[in-house]
Amino acid sequence: MPATHTDKAFEQDLRDLREKLLAMGAKVENLIAQSMKALTERDSPLAEKVVAADKDVNRLEVEIDELCRRILALRQPAASDLRLITTALKIVTDLERIGDLAVNIAERSMDLNQVPPLAPYVDTPRLAELAQQQVKKALDAFVSGDVAKAEEVLQGDDLLDALFLKIFNELLAYMMEDSKNIRRATALMFIAKHLERIGDHAMNVAEMVVYMVRGKDIRHPRSRNLPE
Amino acid sequence: MPATHTDKAFEQDLRDLREKLLAMGAKVENLIAQSMKALTERDSPLAEKVVAADKDVNRLEVEIDELCRRILALRQPAASDLRLITTALKIVTDLERIGDLAVNIAERSMDLNQVPPLAPYVDTPRLAELAQQQVKKALDAFVSGDVAKAEEVLQGDDLLDALFLKIFNELLAYMMEDSKNIRRATALMFIAKHLERIGDHAMNVAEMVVYMVRGKDIRHPRSRNLPE
Repeated sequence: MPATHTDKAFEQDLRDLREKLLAMGAKVENLIAQSMKALTERDSPLAEKVVAADKDVNRLEVEIDELCRRILALRQPAASDLRLITTALKIVTDLERIGDLAVNIAERSMDLNQVPPLAPYVDTPRLAELAQQQVKKALDAFVSGDVAKAEEVLQGDDLLDALFLKIFNELLAYMMEDSKNIRRATALMFIAKHLERIGDHAMNVAEMVVYMVRGKDIRHPRSRNLPE
Repeated sequence: MPATHTDKAFEQDLRDLREKLLAMGAKVENLIAQSMKALTERDSPLAEKVVAADKDVNRLEVEIDELCRRILALRQPAASDLRLITTALKIVTDLERIGDLAVNIAERSMDLNQVPPLAPYVDTPRLAELAQQQVKKALDAFVSGDVAKAEEVLQGDDLLDALFLKIFNELLAYMMEDSKNIRRATALMFIAKHLERIGDHAMNVAEMVVYMVRGKDIRHPRSRNLPE
């Protein structure tokens, strides 16, 4: 294939890619926040909106994949540009799955909204907030190629894991106290687990950013398998 | 970058890629089987082997990523070859996460092996077997570009979901029966959920294979968000 591109066209492609990824990131962050609001404010119509909005995330995934393939085919990027595009191809999958997790939280919220609430959700909204911040920070790190920010995400994950464990143990206590709590507590456990997984996706993105910038793979010296 | 490749060298690269992906697939299938054996036969040393073997999966991930980037840089593939390489880049992430899930199952098995068993695990090994078959079939579909096989994987996922729901409800019943069962049943619930997620990863791979072959994206008309 002949190299017909100009630097200018290539730069425009990369700008488009960054913009689309940021738009997709903002979308999934919003879905996390809304799914949590649907839970804590017992707002099932809002949960339904989250479920419906997932198609926008999915559309963005397909568009970004296509854009990456087009850039690879037409611009034949090398070195750091090639790493940028191949990283974007992977990051988009993480973002799409974060969207799926938010939808799943919204669906569980709809079920929980049919029955009396188990207890105040004290730490769960906090966990959602942290997970959302991690996603935002990881994507910002990608777009600006900022390794220091990516490393903040990696360090921040311990906080999410600790909070998940705290919520998990509290829910276990509710279950032991009264068997009538078991079904609701189990649903809340899965919601907390989904939030913790959103944090893991943010960490995956951050690890890829470090690799993209440094050209050195840091994905696997540390274990991502947590005691939970 | 000059086009210095011959068809022969390119063909060899693609063969290497397929072989490495199959090797990685065989490795993660084996980890699923061994983590389940560690649970049902209460074999903690085997669980430790699964945890240790994850580094081989991770090494293969890095190697395959590098190979894909090298092929993109040196061979500048177009059309269906480009789709093959960009799909491989995504599939390798799914395989790596399947490995992580098997490690997580092994870790939970080690905890469960410290206490008396809750009950026979009747359906859990069956769920593991189905998940493993789905992974194998999805990867075979990728390597042979076989859409019919990929569609079998997509159709097969309902069976996994139904089995997960059955296990989930049985474990809920154990929890309601006796609060002493709660902690162990919760651990088993997460193990079953991990197996169901392995099935989801296989489905993701299968969807990408259909796209790769047909050039048409089928990833998002159907919902992957299940009632669980």
